[in-house]
Amino acid sequence: MTKLNFFKPHAGLSIGEIARITGAVPRAGARLDHRVTDIAPLDRAGPSDLAFLDSAKHLTAMSRTRAGACFTMAEFEDKAPSGLNVLRTPQPFRAFVLVASTLYPDALRPSSLFDSKGVAPGTHVHASAKIENGVTIDPGAVIGPRAGIGTGTVIGATAVIGPDVQIGRRCSVGPGASIIHAFIGDSVIIHPGCRIGQDGFRYQPSPKGHIKVPQIGRVIIQDNVEIGAGTTIDRGGIGDTVIGEGTKIDNLVQIGHNCSIGRHCIIVSQCGISGSVVLGDYVVLAGQVGLADHITIGQGAMIAAQSGVISDVPAGAKYFGYPAAPRGEFLRSVATLRKLSARSGKGKK
Amino acid sequence: MTKLNFFKPHAGLSIGEIARITGAVPRAGARLDHRVTDIAPLDRAGPSDLAFLDSAKHLTAMSRTRAGACFTMAEFEDKAPSGLNVLRTPQPFRAFVLVASTLYPDALRPSSLFDSKGVAPGTHVHASAKIENGVTIDPGAVIGPRAGIGTGTVIGATAVIGPDVQIGRRCSVGPGASIIHAFIGDSVIIHPGCRIGQDGFRYQPSPKGHIKVPQIGRVIIQDNVEIGAGTTIDRGGIGDTVIGEGTKIDNLVQIGHNCSIGRHCIIVSQCGISGSVVLGDYVVLAGQVGLADHITIGQGAMIAAQSGVISDVPAGAKYFGYPAAPRGEFLRSVATLRKLSARSGKGKK
Amino acid sequence: MTKLNFFKPHAGLSIGEIARITGAVPRAGARLDHRVTDIAPLDRAGPSDLAFLDSAKHLTAMSRTRAGACFTMAEFEDKAPSGLNVLRTPQPFRAFVLVASTLYPDALRPSSLFDSKGVAPGTHVHASAKIENGVTIDPGAVIGPRAGIGTGTVIGATAVIGPDVQIGRRCSVGPGASIIHAFIGDSVIIHPGCRIGQDGFRYQPSPKGHIKVPQIGRVIIQDNVEIGAGTTIDRGGIGDTVIGEGTKIDNLVQIGHNCSIGRHCIIVSQCGISGSVVLGDYVVLAGQVGLADHITIGQGAMIAAQSGVISDVPAGAKYFGYPAAPRGEFLRSVATLRKLSARSGKGKK
Repeated sequence: MTKLNFFKPHAGLSIGEIARITGAVPRAGARLDHRVTDIAPLDRAGPSDLAFLDSAKHLTAMSRTRAGACFTMAEFEDKAPSGLNVLRTPQPFRAFVLVASTLYPDALRPSSLFDSKGVAPGTHVHASAKIENGVTIDPGAVIGPRAGIGTGTVIGATAVIGPDVQIGRRCSVGPGASIIHAFIGDSVIIHPGCRIGQDGFRYQPSPKGHIKVPQIGRVIIQDNVEIGAGTTIDRGGIGDTVIGEGTKIDNLVQIGHNCSIGRHCIIVSQCGISGSVVLGDYVVLAGQVGLADHITIGQGAMIAAQSGVISDVPAGAKYFGYPAAPRGEFLRSVATLRKLSARSGKGKK
Repeated sequence: MTKLNFFKPHAGLSIGEIARITGAVPRAGARLDHRVTDIAPLDRAGPSDLAFLDSAKHLTAMSRTRAGACFTMAEFEDKAPSGLNVLRTPQPFRAFVLVASTLYPDALRPSSLFDSKGVAPGTHVHASAKIENGVTIDPGAVIGPRAGIGTGTVIGATAVIGPDVQIGRRCSVGPGASIIHAFIGDSVIIHPGCRIGQDGFRYQPSPKGHIKVPQIGRVIIQDNVEIGAGTTIDRGGIGDTVIGEGTKIDNLVQIGHNCSIGRHCIIVSQCGISGSVVLGDYVVLAGQVGLADHITIGQGAMIAAQSGVISDVPAGAKYFGYPAAPRGEFLRSVATLRKLSARSGKGKK
Repeated sequence: MTKLNFFKPHAGLSIGEIARITGAVPRAGARLDHRVTDIAPLDRAGPSDLAFLDSAKHLTAMSRTRAGACFTMAEFEDKAPSGLNVLRTPQPFRAFVLVASTLYPDALRPSSLFDSKGVAPGTHVHASAKIENGVTIDPGAVIGPRAGIGTGTVIGATAVIGPDVQIGRRCSVGPGASIIHAFIGDSVIIHPGCRIGQDGFRYQPSPKGHIKVPQIGRVIIQDNVEIGAGTTIDRGGIGDTVIGEGTKIDNLVQIGHNCSIGRHCIIVSQCGISGSVVLGDYVVLAGQVGLADHITIGQGAMIAAQSGVISDVPAGAKYFGYPAAPRGEFLRSVATLRKLSARSGKGKK
């Protein structure tokens, strides 16, 4: 769809191939040899674009679309215009993502920004670093003594990898990121400007000023984690700060020392997680949430945007507000206050 | 005023020249040939400094000032001490800014931090990059393949410009910033450590963990935009993330994928704008505001600091609190709660 | 305790030496010649680790510990198992920090990430910069014209120091940080990715768009300040932005132009301090606090996490919520609202 694109164009896929890849069923009359080379929303798609519909909200867009093909559920199939190549599937967005990933393999993991292969000129790799074959290092990157980097990993331009840091295979470290005092698993994506492994924030008060408490722990990042741009993760004080497998962290998040973040959590932008917090698996923190130190958020709990949590949250709970409370309690508070102040507003007239 | 200054000293302007530049009218008896070389607040200004007064709050400071000249409105002119060179104007601060910009032309746009001219040694410019004449690139900067940079633009030390990125003329990119998958207009200022164009935050849930949704869009930044230090702007998922002409964004702001930000908006520090949000022109978001995804903020609306907005805001409205509500409603809520809890506090005695 | 450690192992200290260093008193029967080489929490400590106990909460952990020695207060001494080498002290954590600092001297201040001594190859130091003997500069760092750096200071990889910036002695500047328009005292720690000295956020509205107000001030950072990763501190507009001696600032904090931050303040992660704010000495801002511009926070005041402060706070006060109010008032509001909405919830049944 997009004219000036940052990704290489794909030769395209036929409707038949897409059906095979996704398991979607072409509607009777679909031209199985029609090819699409790109993806687009229904309202902007053209004949060489694939689109999807998974909500009645966009039925009008589907009725007018010029898309070359469209995934949708059985219930919407009959609403599609007769000329549209419809692919029936119970999960249109999932199928769409699968095709998008096939058309744009480079979009699944950031690659060299300099078309580099291997270690580019203009990098600063310490003689004692252990760089496996198949590692790409962009210009200006600095790799410290004894650091190890696994095959398939791309280290972005001007990224800094500290002494003894170990990074697994098929990782991507964005430009300008810094990683110290850390072990990173496989297939981890670290976006530009991430700050991993610096000192946690702890002082001992004293009459002469705050005394710095040495921070001697590490950051452990497990496989398949993704960490957003500008996010900061401090190393442990004595123990470690751990980010569990498959967890996805957005931009400008702060994670304090000694936190233990579970597997497959979602942590949205600008959340602040104080020191020694424990998150179970599959926890979701919406944007700008703040968590007080030393609390535990149970498995699968969801915390609404901007909430401030000051005590433990049970597994599966949904919390809102400050101090954060269960959803029902929060909604009742909001409604009560609204009612009372509407009344008081009237009283004034 | 300042002794150790980071800007080059100016030869100075006479009161007469300042009157000509700004249209301000010198008070009878002002010495038109008196020269000022610097600007300062009334209470710290000396004979070679220009000051301004636009509020009765600072009349005492004016009565004692040693400033070489002072802009003020007609209503305050008579309050000025007789020895002061007064310049009368209906908008003293505007006149002051105009003179400040004349005395400090270098302060209007960050320049080379290395006194570089052209491409400094120690840069990494890909052979296929298109660098116009008159571009300055500081040491350690990395310019990717096929990137284009317009004349008059300064690329800061260790900044990273990705493949195919196009940057207009007279722009400034701060040290350590990274720009990928983006087109940047003319006269854009990007402050240090900005992160532009990385992947948006979107996953498809699955029993085996979150599946990354390819992010194939771009960031489009129009002319005269200014973007603060450490701010992150993600590229579009399918479409583009757009920042409209003249919009000013402060430090550590997060702008999610597919957002469409209007022209001449003001977005204060640490705001978080979720994906696919639409801002009309002249919207003001005060500090630490959070906007939920897929909402629209109408033209000229103002959102108070720390508010959390979860649904559309009409044009021109002023919203406060969480969930954000119109100003009057919010103030009534605060007052009602204060009254009720004061009463309940009394009841306890 | 930790197997793969990022710090050099220490030869260790005997119980007798530890008693001498800290003034703690060994319990009768303690083996004064037993050596510890590391620190650990009670539950994970082994025979060569030192631990501490300062709360009854962890008595069970002490009863089972395998630690080589443990600091505790007189009141807990008798609860320690007979084989444990107990060191009695009124302030166990303070003693523990003192020993930790002795065992891990490198943890008190970040050092070269490249095992560099002096100016490493691959740095870009302007010919007119004044670098004292005993300065360490890591690869990729850029030092601008006329900048001065004092002995014992370490400039991290790819850090950028602008023209005329002066940095004192024994400082540490983390990788990727940028410092412009600033004077930095002695023993200052600046963590990775800090952004110091860029333009403040000020515009003059006009029908043709916002007019940039020149920012010609500076940032002054006094001795013994520590500034977290990704934090942004803007330079003054006309005057200076000042950070007082011994103040500690966490990650991703925003400090606006012309702020005057007192001595020995604690500013936790993601706080946003608007322009021209004055903080007295020993102020504590918990995480994600927002302060409106031109307000004063009195000496020793404490602001709770996520609070939004819109007017002056008296010295010593504790403020909560938005708009921030004294602690008692805030707690009453929360309790009142909870009671009223519980009642209204019942009414609905």
